[in-house]
Amino acid sequence: MSVTFPRGFRAAGVAAGMKPSGRRDLGLLVADRPCAAAGLFTTNRVQAAPVRLSRARLAATGGRAVGVLVNSGQANAATGPRGERDARTATARAAELLGADPDQLLACSTGVIGEPLHLDLLLAALPDLVASLSEGGGSAFARAIMTTDTLSKEARAEAGRIRVGGCAKGVGMISPDLATMLAFLTTDAPVAPEHLRALARATLEPRFEALTVDGCRSTNDTVLVFASGAAGGEPVEPGTPAWSALEGAFVRVGSSLVAQLAADAEGATRVLLIDVEGARSAEDARRAAKAVADSPLVKTAAFGGDPNPGRIVQAVGASGAEVDPERIDVWIGPVQVVAGGVIPPTYFETKGEAAREAMAGPEVRIRVSLGDGPGRSRALGCDLSYGYVRINGEYTT
Amino acid sequence: MSVTFPRGFRAAGVAAGMKPSGRRDLGLLVADRPCAAAGLFTTNRVQAAPVRLSRARLAATGGRAVGVLVNSGQANAATGPRGERDARTATARAAELLGADPDQLLACSTGVIGEPLHLDLLLAALPDLVASLSEGGGSAFARAIMTTDTLSKEARAEAGRIRVGGCAKGVGMISPDLATMLAFLTTDAPVAPEHLRALARATLEPRFEALTVDGCRSTNDTVLVFASGAAGGEPVEPGTPAWSALEGAFVRVGSSLVAQLAADAEGATRVLLIDVEGARSAEDARRAAKAVADSPLVKTAAFGGDPNPGRIVQAVGASGAEVDPERIDVWIGPVQVVAGGVIPPTYFETKGEAAREAMAGPEVRIRVSLGDGPGRSRALGCDLSYGYVRINGEYTT
Repeated sequence: MSVTFPRGFRAAGVAAGMKPSGRRDLGLLVADRPCAAAGLFTTNRVQAAPVRLSRARLAATGGRAVGVLVNSGQANAATGPRGERDARTATARAAELLGADPDQLLACSTGVIGEPLHLDLLLAALPDLVASLSEGGGSAFARAIMTTDTLSKEARAEAGRIRVGGCAKGVGMISPDLATMLAFLTTDAPVAPEHLRALARATLEPRFEALTVDGCRSTNDTVLVFASGAAGGEPVEPGTPAWSALEGAFVRVGSSLVAQLAADAEGATRVLLIDVEGARSAEDARRAAKAVADSPLVKTAAFGGDPNPGRIVQAVGASGAEVDPERIDVWIGPVQVVAGGVIPPTYFETKGEAAREAMAGPEVRIRVSLGDGPGRSRALGCDLSYGYVRINGEYTT
Repeated sequence: MSVTFPRGFRAAGVAAGMKPSGRRDLGLLVADRPCAAAGLFTTNRVQAAPVRLSRARLAATGGRAVGVLVNSGQANAATGPRGERDARTATARAAELLGADPDQLLACSTGVIGEPLHLDLLLAALPDLVASLSEGGGSAFARAIMTTDTLSKEARAEAGRIRVGGCAKGVGMISPDLATMLAFLTTDAPVAPEHLRALARATLEPRFEALTVDGCRSTNDTVLVFASGAAGGEPVEPGTPAWSALEGAFVRVGSSLVAQLAADAEGATRVLLIDVEGARSAEDARRAAKAVADSPLVKTAAFGGDPNPGRIVQAVGASGAEVDPERIDVWIGPVQVVAGGVIPPTYFETKGEAAREAMAGPEVRIRVSLGDGPGRSRALGCDLSYGYVRINGEYTT
């Protein structure tokens, strides 16, 4: 159900023939009428045409949109003026078929960077796509946005009468060169555009920002949020119990999607949860957590099931965070492997047996305490396996 | 010959039994008398005991030293106060045997982080080590500092009557958890300590800083330079022809060692030369070049021999450098794969055949022009292969 779990939305996904595999590659999510919308976009200096278009449209409308058209197979990034034209042409034609204002239809693309959209195929598939929109189309939409994902990622939550749904794709912050993490969340809560932006920033940004598969920010990363208001009732406003409930539902859906993304990351055999506490600031904690999650040495050690605490200390020390080396404590699961900056001699005497056991499962929890302040942060990553090298090394454009 | 190619130095390397393999693991390089010395040290916040000791001794003496004692097998990092004591005890005993001032003997360690030095074995081997010092001992020294290096790295150059020699080790900025890149250069030029520091900063720092195997700054990285003055003649001072000749010799030896390190990097099958030009500043160029060299997506693409220009653009855009996406040009070897931020359609039509051919060899040259200023920089890296994952994933502490 995903994005069509909340009332007031229809979705569809079809195969337009743009993906070499012949699988579904074109998705459409629309609200019954223009509604509040908000976006979080990649901070890469190189941004795909649909990213620039969606951002500009949300700015121009003050956060109102009728939906989003998504294609998978071509990222429409590094495609120059032609890419801009293609994105405008595709959304204009879809809006025409929907009887909607083209300035209120957003766009996302994911796939090979640089390859132009197969615009002819896309335009030819639009009538079928629009005709197949339905209130049960969320899963078809979720499948249509996949590239090398092995599973579709869908989540839902309820907060009283209010529903929140979502789906996402992406197997790296950038995948093979099928660029992109994309996520779409919907709610039927009545929420004003400015509050929806605040909600997305507060509940989604930290969760999606905490995810790192290979440290590569894509040219296309986008999170879009729509609020149809179809649940009825009073507008949900910050500071009210209904707002807190809505926040909770967004956190649950966002967290679930992020966890599903990490678990399906390219070649991943283990998810890494890195919690840093006791940093001088939240930003220092974020840096240290990301540095551990992105370290190829920590990631390969996780793949091998090897605790290797020296690599964790190395990554923290090189992260750029303010660190007093003599106060660093590290735990792998429940096992302390660094105390006051020193790896206990017992670790080597036992060949790290206890920590090794704590790494045996599909989820590895690493906790780093810097003993130096209130800053804390979590990063979510995965191991670095032969599979990652195979997927990214043997894939050819 | 390496470090003993210049006159006025002796070196040795022996097996003290600290390395599980039983290979040479203790090296000593000494000048015939205390001489000018300078060091470049890791910027990791977590620094090994010998790094702190050597830095402090060079500061206290104003850049005079008699030599350096190096062990491989244990990094003596994250070892707390015991690590400090061990480094002092080892150098004090070696200095005693040499009849030298212990404050003028430097120390380096490389190996497993956290594991204490096997001090008993080290002390027991010192008399043999000192007894075997010789003017032909440079290669034995170069072998004694290796960890998972498959080849020893040695280089030499001459500038008139002046000789420069060097050796290095390291298969990652940090290797398995055999932490460390170490390099030692010697010259028989008469150079004052303050000028030797300037020479190291100008000729070696940019070259060793440009090297990246996995983006991981180790706890032990050290470059030490010694100038015996044994070539005789007037002191070599900045601004003179002799200085320029000496700079040239340092550049040649430094460049050779860096190239040897990249070629022997863990699992590497190809060396990557990333040249960025046209950046707003040298710092921006450095960031962009490093980002490309460190990108796991570019590195896996290089392993697969796949040009994948989208990944290069993605890495530049996410590097933090000021970039105008529409001015980015990229070449792989002689083949332009991005022009004005756009991957030419011919690239996809030909499946990147020309660029693919330019990646077939053991050295891949990627040139990025940002069209926006005078800043330029080079990064030297390597591909990311199954071998890297095997070495770092299957290695166990």
